[in-house]
Amino acid sequence: MDDQLERLNRLPLRDDLRGQHPYGAPQIDVPIQLNVNENTYGVPQDVQEAIVEAVREVAAGLNRYPDREFTALREALAEYLGHGLGAEQLWAANGSNEVLQQLLQAFGGPGRSVLSFPPTYSMYPLLASGTGTAYIKGERAEDFGLSAESAARQVREHAPSIVILCSPNNPTGTALGLDVVEAVYAAGEESQTVVIVDEAYAEFAHTGTQSALTLLPGRPRLVVSRTMSKAFALAGARLGYLAAAPEVVDALRLVRLPYHLSAVTQATALAALRHRTSLMAEVEAIKGQRDRIVRELAGLGLSPAASDSNFVFVRGFEDPRRIWEGLLESGIIVRDVGIPGSLRITAGTEAETTAFLDRLRELLVTA
Amino acid sequence: MDDQLERLNRLPLRDDLRGQHPYGAPQIDVPIQLNVNENTYGVPQDVQEAIVEAVREVAAGLNRYPDREFTALREALAEYLGHGLGAEQLWAANGSNEVLQQLLQAFGGPGRSVLSFPPTYSMYPLLASGTGTAYIKGERAEDFGLSAESAARQVREHAPSIVILCSPNNPTGTALGLDVVEAVYAAGEESQTVVIVDEAYAEFAHTGTQSALTLLPGRPRLVVSRTMSKAFALAGARLGYLAAAPEVVDALRLVRLPYHLSAVTQATALAALRHRTSLMAEVEAIKGQRDRIVRELAGLGLSPAASDSNFVFVRGFEDPRRIWEGLLESGIIVRDVGIPGSLRITAGTEAETTAFLDRLRELLVTA
Repeated sequence: MDDQLERLNRLPLRDDLRGQHPYGAPQIDVPIQLNVNENTYGVPQDVQEAIVEAVREVAAGLNRYPDREFTALREALAEYLGHGLGAEQLWAANGSNEVLQQLLQAFGGPGRSVLSFPPTYSMYPLLASGTGTAYIKGERAEDFGLSAESAARQVREHAPSIVILCSPNNPTGTALGLDVVEAVYAAGEESQTVVIVDEAYAEFAHTGTQSALTLLPGRPRLVVSRTMSKAFALAGARLGYLAAAPEVVDALRLVRLPYHLSAVTQATALAALRHRTSLMAEVEAIKGQRDRIVRELAGLGLSPAASDSNFVFVRGFEDPRRIWEGLLESGIIVRDVGIPGSLRITAGTEAETTAFLDRLRELLVTA
Repeated sequence: MDDQLERLNRLPLRDDLRGQHPYGAPQIDVPIQLNVNENTYGVPQDVQEAIVEAVREVAAGLNRYPDREFTALREALAEYLGHGLGAEQLWAANGSNEVLQQLLQAFGGPGRSVLSFPPTYSMYPLLASGTGTAYIKGERAEDFGLSAESAARQVREHAPSIVILCSPNNPTGTALGLDVVEAVYAAGEESQTVVIVDEAYAEFAHTGTQSALTLLPGRPRLVVSRTMSKAFALAGARLGYLAAAPEVVDALRLVRLPYHLSAVTQATALAALRHRTSLMAEVEAIKGQRDRIVRELAGLGLSPAASDSNFVFVRGFEDPRRIWEGLLESGIIVRDVGIPGSLRITAGTEAETTAFLDRLRELLVTA
């Protein structure tokens, strides 16, 4: 390995990449995987069958390049989101990471900047680096909250090319009020800041939580990104998407690689969208387990954050590393996101949640 | 449309993107499509069935993120290429465009440069622009040839960070001798130039043509890129790949988006690799039609270039636009690559080739 690292260092790698490590949580094969916020309920049988049939329909034509505009998929995504959106306002790519990368290529890049508010999704600084965009670390309150006043002030102060608001925020799980999005958009008027609201976990929000989609009319610099990885149980199929003004979609056509979305990916995503009833039932079950985790962790004297997502961020561990390792010994993996005293746990099935809570109680007692 | 363009111009788009148009050949639905070098024979029945079964096997697990290292696919690609390659030397992405983009992100970018030799694959300058890499236009001989001496001299002159040699070259169709690759690699020693040989069409080369894969041992700056879009009839599935030293693969891990290759894409590509006998028979048939086109066009007094690919580049048209339009009126689309007096024709099935040649003869007579 050292030998291979030495050979890597002899290559004419870009200076800013030297000494870096590849991004990604460990892919450890244990029975209970609650570390990367997947939908652990699995793909419902009817959705599996719909996917297989959809792939069968496109298989004979795979010798042809796919529809570069993935029109049918964009229509289905628009219909799913509602809010009066049309296909011309939808765009998709291989995971929301690629959607965000395209946005940074169009509106960021050398000489430009992107602001986000850590702790937040750890890919943002990496996407900035990969596109040569300067990354600005914004600040949150002590409890990781972000008020409209604070966010707007920071946007005025830094005048970034782009700001990314993650709502519900990963890893803390709490959704932002729409007042924050409105204030940030208004504060970015002078700097013409593009405002991206990353709503990867939006489907898990508590009833009554409003999506930033409602703010799109009249806001051409506003972008709302979503993914099929979580609520649609399709992390393996890689389908991220966004809704915005049609001219934002035009801008992305200038930076996307032609035919970036395969015919198989288009077919798979379409099949899941058309059979979403069973998936949405899973979302309700996951929300139930998520609320159960919050309730029970609070009962154990820990400090779980309010969660609008499919995971719970919890503080109050004396030695989170010991807990993480103890869980792993029992075949349960959760996420240590590197914030002192904390862990992040994906809400799983009822059985997985029970196994996690039981083992956690044992570990806390033996502390 | 003008209204939408005006709205696009009001967005804070990067300056270098302003006024640009999205890349891509027209996607016109006509019976005989010989314009984008697809394999027009279609996906063989046994490959279709293998793909459907492979997707069935992964469908239940699509709620999980895919294998970030796509190990099984890399092993199968190494076995397919042969030359003693191991999985640690293979890498893949969503089309060879993404493979090239990752190479430019790792070894190009701001302050760095990439050299290629037009007329060549028109995505190279766009990939350079998208990654902030300066693009250097190299020069070819009058007949579009590129000698070892000329290529090496240009590499020494420009000392680029990266050079891309397209072999067989698109749109001219001719393969480079390995002496050119060897000379370019040696000339790039001082500038530590990364040498990419784009062999997208390698499977169609005449018997005895050597691949740059044979040059990999002892050349850590050499990269050979390939695709499953052409010989494997999988343009719709988007699978490009490369072979290089293991440390080049390590470098790409630093710039790839995590989980960039979906589980469905991995399954689809694996299925085709495992059922390639029928695909390789199609390749032989296509080579036969390609040679027939070259022979017959020469007989018509035109000047087809020697082709090692699945298409023929032909010069000698007085009015190629009239020919292009005349063919389209008969439901046949070929490619006008913008080189005066020329057209590029994909070798299709025997029936498609016959239809093309018959209509062309008519059009030439009515000139």
